[in-house]
Amino acid sequence: MAAEVDAPFRIGLLGHGTVGSAFARLLPERADAVAAGAGRRPEIVGVLTRSRGEFDDILERSDLIVELIGGVEPAREYVLRALAAGRHVVTANKALLSQHGEELYAAARAGGVQLRFEAAVGGVVPVIRVIHETLAAAHVEKVHGIVNGTTNFILSEMARTGATYETSLAEAKRLGYAETDPADDVSGRDAAAKMAIIARLAFDAPVHLDQVAYEGIEGVTPDDIAYARDLGLSLKLVGSAERVDGGLAVRVFPTFLYAEHPLASVNGAFNAVTIESPAITEITLSGPGAGGSQTASAVLGDVVSAIIPPPTLPPPAVEQPLVSDVVSAFYLHLEVADRPGVLAQVAEILGLQSVSVKSVVQSGLGDDARLVMVVHPVLESKFLAAVGLIGRLDFLRSTPRVIRVIEEHF
Amino acid sequence: MAAEVDAPFRIGLLGHGTVGSAFARLLPERADAVAAGAGRRPEIVGVLTRSRGEFDDILERSDLIVELIGGVEPAREYVLRALAAGRHVVTANKALLSQHGEELYAAARAGGVQLRFEAAVGGVVPVIRVIHETLAAAHVEKVHGIVNGTTNFILSEMARTGATYETSLAEAKRLGYAETDPADDVSGRDAAAKMAIIARLAFDAPVHLDQVAYEGIEGVTPDDIAYARDLGLSLKLVGSAERVDGGLAVRVFPTFLYAEHPLASVNGAFNAVTIESPAITEITLSGPGAGGSQTASAVLGDVVSAIIPPPTLPPPAVEQPLVSDVVSAFYLHLEVADRPGVLAQVAEILGLQSVSVKSVVQSGLGDDARLVMVVHPVLESKFLAAVGLIGRLDFLRSTPRVIRVIEEHF
Repeated sequence: MAAEVDAPFRIGLLGHGTVGSAFARLLPERADAVAAGAGRRPEIVGVLTRSRGEFDDILERSDLIVELIGGVEPAREYVLRALAAGRHVVTANKALLSQHGEELYAAARAGGVQLRFEAAVGGVVPVIRVIHETLAAAHVEKVHGIVNGTTNFILSEMARTGATYETSLAEAKRLGYAETDPADDVSGRDAAAKMAIIARLAFDAPVHLDQVAYEGIEGVTPDDIAYARDLGLSLKLVGSAERVDGGLAVRVFPTFLYAEHPLASVNGAFNAVTIESPAITEITLSGPGAGGSQTASAVLGDVVSAIIPPPTLPPPAVEQPLVSDVVSAFYLHLEVADRPGVLAQVAEILGLQSVSVKSVVQSGLGDDARLVMVVHPVLESKFLAAVGLIGRLDFLRSTPRVIRVIEEHF
Repeated sequence: MAAEVDAPFRIGLLGHGTVGSAFARLLPERADAVAAGAGRRPEIVGVLTRSRGEFDDILERSDLIVELIGGVEPAREYVLRALAAGRHVVTANKALLSQHGEELYAAARAGGVQLRFEAAVGGVVPVIRVIHETLAAAHVEKVHGIVNGTTNFILSEMARTGATYETSLAEAKRLGYAETDPADDVSGRDAAAKMAIIARLAFDAPVHLDQVAYEGIEGVTPDDIAYARDLGLSLKLVGSAERVDGGLAVRVFPTFLYAEHPLASVNGAFNAVTIESPAITEITLSGPGAGGSQTASAVLGDVVSAIIPPPTLPPPAVEQPLVSDVVSAFYLHLEVADRPGVLAQVAEILGLQSVSVKSVVQSGLGDDARLVMVVHPVLESKFLAAVGLIGRLDFLRSTPRVIRVIEEHF
């Protein structure tokens, strides 16, 4: 089933905006890898934009429709017609799913086809697959999510700089984290649509966008954030979907979180979702909020699953040797005699092996003198050769201690 | 396809230790929910333990074998025979997969059946599904993981209390986070087996446990952790699998992380994995490390996927009303006149509505006097009624500001 490649898997692409064009670029790059794993090579057989393409023609020639038009109409009509025609559909359309989800899910059942929508919620964070598949048999009690990157960026900026909402929104626009008209994001409506979709999956109950109470971040003041910090809290726009006595509550509000909460440390344009269920306690998923290539990647993951749900592993693709001597940063801890020239000698040996020191702390006196440093990434064999030489110096009071360091992230 | 229930889906369970017995308890609890979604009701038709059951008989009567014996033999023989007989297999056996994975994956391909093993890696963290399915078409560059809860608990304790390795290990044993013989965990071997399995999936290359270099935490001293803190680092047992020039490197070492790294804040008996790929930047998944019910839940998720990969949503299960008046904690920010009795009046109104104050900060003088408080969870309608009354007090200088608070986590 694995390496043999059958007929191409034909994709009709609706929409060619930021995400659509990113998907059209990504697919050919990854088509060979998909073919190796899934047995069929995906290819785009038609693209529908406002100015070109004809839906019926594209539908006729496709095995699967990728809908990236956005908004309710004509996306709804196209998706319904594709499902009725027995075509799988992959969509990133949160407005559509949060307002007409039940109609679409029913059409997919009736057509005996797949409707996948990972890209509609959470950027690259695979919250849909994890709730719908990993936790298919779990009893989900509660989902808390930071599901809008724009507002999380703005609140993070306000907390970091003390700036006002207006200044931070302007900065978000400048950096491309907010659109020219940010109303959908800052009002909480975008997050509400995503929480409606999540709640439908988590609780097996129909939830319409109109049933989600939401409030945005426009009224948040630097004062709130400063006072909250005194109380040990950080402010996020949190979507919550939970079982309560008598039913479900699905809401989006600016919310304070204690430092221990898994979402409290999610900063910048990131998304994150925490899912609580008695058997598992909780799972937290986090990653960048939507960008063109990220969303296109989530769409492609859904396309591959629609081609063939991976039942087992294909044979290894290519021989890839395992390498043992790799580049790494290190921490080096030396117990040394308390006398002049020690650091100079150590530094000389490191320099001869091209090891560059990033930071160094000298501490202690007499029998407690130590030299502790972090070095920049270097081939392990070189660093360990230097440590071997240092270990032979007469002022060392014990064997050098070495621990790897993962370099600063971003 | 949804609500109609066909013939039961028959499961043969091998092993009845901690995870096996947790699975045997969990399955009947969740069987109705699985049947509603997947169309077939799962049931255990036979259990093999050291003292009872007969493998051939159980195999004959099963659609799927759940292998929770652990270790290489006889688990390997049973899994191979099940796959050859055309039965799906779900296993949590990292020792088996990291040493005989290719043989098993080939047997699954040959048998045209599924071999699923989410529970072998990462506790409840769905790293296998995310790498294998969500990222099926992505080019994964690097995976960093905290994949052993015992060692992460011990290192967290050392950092929190300043205690030695030995003392922290004893505490881990006392709390059930370390086994009586912790050698496999503290030596890094358990993490190495998990990284071998992750690397196989992420890079489509065979990786054997013997090819993973690993080092444990037995030699870590309180000194290392204290000095590292001075340098802004935290110490974790990190598994890394990455593409390097000329091939792959898969290793497990005690490693320092800068505070910004997504794994740096993962404390206690938790697991977490960060996956980096150009198109998605990165995804981080975190949750509790393995416990009996957590692992059983991961096994059940795999069983459900083997019954039927969810192509679309079943109809909503039951009518669940959406509730708008729910219990929440709140932050209340009042700009008040600077005069005596203000706090007393506010407190009285809150008390009459059964709102209980958790913390309060009074600050500022004259025209800048403020009263900022956090209240314990209370029905929103009661809190908002109190705020309505407070808003009418003559010493208020502006409208009360209200923000929800999510209570302390754990």
